[in-house]
Amino acid sequence: MSYSKKKHWKTRLHEIIYEADTPEGKLFDVILLIIIIASILLVMLESVESIDRKYHTIINISEWIVTILFTIEYIARIVTVKKPLHYITSFYGIIDLLSTIPKYISLFFAGTHALVAIRALRLLRVFRILKLGRYLGASNNLLRAIKASRVKISVFLFAVVIISIILGTIMYIVEGEEHGFTNIPKSVYWCIVTLTTVGYGDIAPQTPIGQFIASIVMVLGYGIIAVPTGIVTAEIAKVSDNTPTVNTTSCANCSAEGHKDHADFCYNCGHKLH
Amino acid sequence: MSYSKKKHWKTRLHEIIYEADTPEGKLFDVILLIIIIASILLVMLESVESIDRKYHTIINISEWIVTILFTIEYIARIVTVKKPLHYITSFYGIIDLLSTIPKYISLFFAGTHALVAIRALRLLRVFRILKLGRYLGASNNLLRAIKASRVKISVFLFAVVIISIILGTIMYIVEGEEHGFTNIPKSVYWCIVTLTTVGYGDIAPQTPIGQFIASIVMVLGYGIIAVPTGIVTAEIAKVSDNTPTVNTTSCANCSAEGHKDHADFCYNCGHKLH
Amino acid sequence: MSYSKKKHWKTRLHEIIYEADTPEGKLFDVILLIIIIASILLVMLESVESIDRKYHTIINISEWIVTILFTIEYIARIVTVKKPLHYITSFYGIIDLLSTIPKYISLFFAGTHALVAIRALRLLRVFRILKLGRYLGASNNLLRAIKASRVKISVFLFAVVIISIILGTIMYIVEGEEHGFTNIPKSVYWCIVTLTTVGYGDIAPQTPIGQFIASIVMVLGYGIIAVPTGIVTAEIAKVSDNTPTVNTTSCANCSAEGHKDHADFCYNCGHKLH
Amino acid sequence: MSYSKKKHWKTRLHEIIYEADTPEGKLFDVILLIIIIASILLVMLESVESIDRKYHTIINISEWIVTILFTIEYIARIVTVKKPLHYITSFYGIIDLLSTIPKYISLFFAGTHALVAIRALRLLRVFRILKLGRYLGASNNLLRAIKASRVKISVFLFAVVIISIILGTIMYIVEGEEHGFTNIPKSVYWCIVTLTTVGYGDIAPQTPIGQFIASIVMVLGYGIIAVPTGIVTAEIAKVSDNTPTVNTTSCANCSAEGHKDHADFCYNCGHKLH
Repeated sequence: MSYSKKKHWKTRLHEIIYEADTPEGKLFDVILLIIIIASILLVMLESVESIDRKYHTIINISEWIVTILFTIEYIARIVTVKKPLHYITSFYGIIDLLSTIPKYISLFFAGTHALVAIRALRLLRVFRILKLGRYLGASNNLLRAIKASRVKISVFLFAVVIISIILGTIMYIVEGEEHGFTNIPKSVYWCIVTLTTVGYGDIAPQTPIGQFIASIVMVLGYGIIAVPTGIVTAEIAKVSDNTPTVNTTSCANCSAEGHKDHADFCYNCGHKLH
Repeated sequence: MSYSKKKHWKTRLHEIIYEADTPEGKLFDVILLIIIIASILLVMLESVESIDRKYHTIINISEWIVTILFTIEYIARIVTVKKPLHYITSFYGIIDLLSTIPKYISLFFAGTHALVAIRALRLLRVFRILKLGRYLGASNNLLRAIKASRVKISVFLFAVVIISIILGTIMYIVEGEEHGFTNIPKSVYWCIVTLTTVGYGDIAPQTPIGQFIASIVMVLGYGIIAVPTGIVTAEIAKVSDNTPTVNTTSCANCSAEGHKDHADFCYNCGHKLH
Repeated sequence: MSYSKKKHWKTRLHEIIYEADTPEGKLFDVILLIIIIASILLVMLESVESIDRKYHTIINISEWIVTILFTIEYIARIVTVKKPLHYITSFYGIIDLLSTIPKYISLFFAGTHALVAIRALRLLRVFRILKLGRYLGASNNLLRAIKASRVKISVFLFAVVIISIILGTIMYIVEGEEHGFTNIPKSVYWCIVTLTTVGYGDIAPQTPIGQFIASIVMVLGYGIIAVPTGIVTAEIAKVSDNTPTVNTTSCANCSAEGHKDHADFCYNCGHKLH
Repeated sequence: MSYSKKKHWKTRLHEIIYEADTPEGKLFDVILLIIIIASILLVMLESVESIDRKYHTIINISEWIVTILFTIEYIARIVTVKKPLHYITSFYGIIDLLSTIPKYISLFFAGTHALVAIRALRLLRVFRILKLGRYLGASNNLLRAIKASRVKISVFLFAVVIISIILGTIMYIVEGEEHGFTNIPKSVYWCIVTLTTVGYGDIAPQTPIGQFIASIVMVLGYGIIAVPTGIVTAEIAKVSDNTPTVNTTSCANCSAEGHKDHADFCYNCGHKLH
């Protein structure tokens, strides 16, 4: 086997594994996605006692098959890529490793293989398969909007934490241990449950004063949800305004931009477009 | 009966059944709507044991009357329409059939006629009755905005599912079976209940670490609701911007509408505006 | 007493009762507001058994005092107004009457006087007192935005009701009576509780399929809240854009509008403003 | 020690304590922040009985150390500042005092030292440390948007309270004491729990009519959350529009910034831009 041929083989495999433009590459990604979903379902089913008791052997064998397939894929990725270290330390590289190891570890330590659920993160690869399409564009826009509002959201979440600590402590004093507010961390937990309008009801105020303060917490939570919503909405509106997805036509005469779709003439100077 | 007369009769019936512009057509639609609502109420009342025991015969007879009326209507629709197959395979055609059949099936199989509730879908016909008015316009705008944000919403929902699977698994490991997190699918269910801020409280974390992770899930759910809201808001704002409600200028040359504000020339024919 | 004097007395009383521009008018409105709040508190306290047992006589006497004061006010309003019938049939007129009668009725029929809580509606008068200020402006803007989105909101709520009926029926079939879904109306109720993310937990799905459908309902409810929010946000943004509260300066030279606050020169032609 | 030297010493201390521009000032603020977080954790841990029983002495000693450090800091702040009274009566001054006193009071009165949680408010100082960065800008923008929508939000909350009182009373009449709606204040509490979509489930309607009214309350609460969200979103969009992040043009003549997009002349001096 000549050196050039070996390289060719590596390059081809790299194309199949890392790219989704060729039919083989697309097929590879689709099969990979199916295996990932199957592996997640396996972990889920295994955790259901009644199913596990019946089909324990089948599930176990299937999991080993998936794990071995993942191992082969992981090794192939390292072998075919030019900078293996770069892949290993990348986001996807770490997820790929973490979703393969637990099963091996479970040979030595019991109970840890539930971590196999990290495989769910591998589902993110779905975006790569669809990368030619509009999905990645949409998710990029979303991520950009979320990134842009990161600072404001942090400030907001920080304020929520402070409010929760203070109101949680007040409720601990008001309601006391006999009504389920056994300590301050638990009261803060209750406050977050209420402020976020989740409201389990496992801990609920029972004194009139406690219920009055709880009402304030609820209305507060009901009201301040407007803040992150407002932040993200404003950012999304901004991002989608700046994105040239709608219309990138520029008038040849006066260079005006922002034409309507299907516009044939410039709205600014009347010059013919296109 | 001459052929032409028969056709005339068909055309008239078609007008009454399919259109809502003539007084008879409107009357037909209103009566139909009342029957649909009555049929839904009947199914609901029948399911209430105490009412069913008392009025079983009356409800049963009324349901048969409704079913026969629906059958007649369904046949009339097929007979009067030009392309019967087109109607039968259309959205409304399928709903019309599905809301008529179950009662007949219930003659042979017990317990299935609760499916009669599919009749609720027939309520969508209300939009046709109001089609002359503003309602359809509003719902069209809504649908367009929802359609435009479909891709982004899918990306978002996909991310929610991945988050739920990962956090659900972590909670299964942390809380364990003794606190209600009996298996991973149930933990994922709990995670969705919490992330969407529904919070039944049938399963609730009891260990401090579990409550801490749950707090993160809640705050996350409370925060990321901003994302779909932001997407839809931005789309609705865009759609209502494109709607020619604000700028009512119409080109004197080609009658094109929907010009940009401050536009000096028609985007369609290049004619000077104003 | 001359006729003119009597008229004068009526006019003065009218000013005090109906207007809030004079010091006496303002004082009257503030006192009225305090009595309204007191009357609501009385009704609330009376319903608390432990308090009612102790202070029954005091509360009863206070309620009669409030009722008599309301009666005098109601008569005074009829006497002093030019068109009594117009007042009696107006929104405020009906509320004023309804919040006075129950106590009298309670003399003859027991248990009905809880309706005195209709008095809470009288609190709306607070907006009149503040009518000179910014509050009414803000509430008018809000009302206008809500009014403008009325049609879209109706379409949305109608869709929610249809979804609830269909999904509620499906859950009734899936979960059945043994898991709390005793009949279709109750299942529809559960569906609304879940879709609106309230989530009491008094009824909760227990079968895996039921929990799966419930998850879809939750994610649906979590997602579609974006729709009314988007509608109202777009309307509020539109309304506040149209409101000339920010800056109404128009350039004397080129008539350009939309100047920044504190702008001294026109951004369009450079002409000095003011 | 000469007077000038003493002043110098005071000035330096003032710089360290009050400013965050010098390395020492930054270090002081970071250490202070760590102590604040530690002090809050101490109060929380102390309230957990199992931890308190084991480590009571350590926690108590640590709390006294923190309290003494806070006392020294408080005195240092008063000594070094030019207008001590201004500091003492300021927002931060009051919080600093309130987070120091409770521990001393707990020497004489038992049970009151839980108020030490007011220390959480000291966390707000974190914004000062980051004041050079973008955080304060973001939080300022948020505060401005929230301030601008204050009036509208009040109107909205006022309406929510009125709705809660009226619907709460109706539910009290409909459901009655046997279903948990023991008195009107409790019914109003239930109404707020439902309207804000928290939904504890400790009180839940059980009669069909009650569940029907509850459904209306839920849909109402689900719908009107759009109002505060809309208000804040519109304000945030407005505020971030006014922020000169988009247009960075600076007038060559007067250096004014924050010009409108497409502005050709400076709004401040009338000089031609670009």
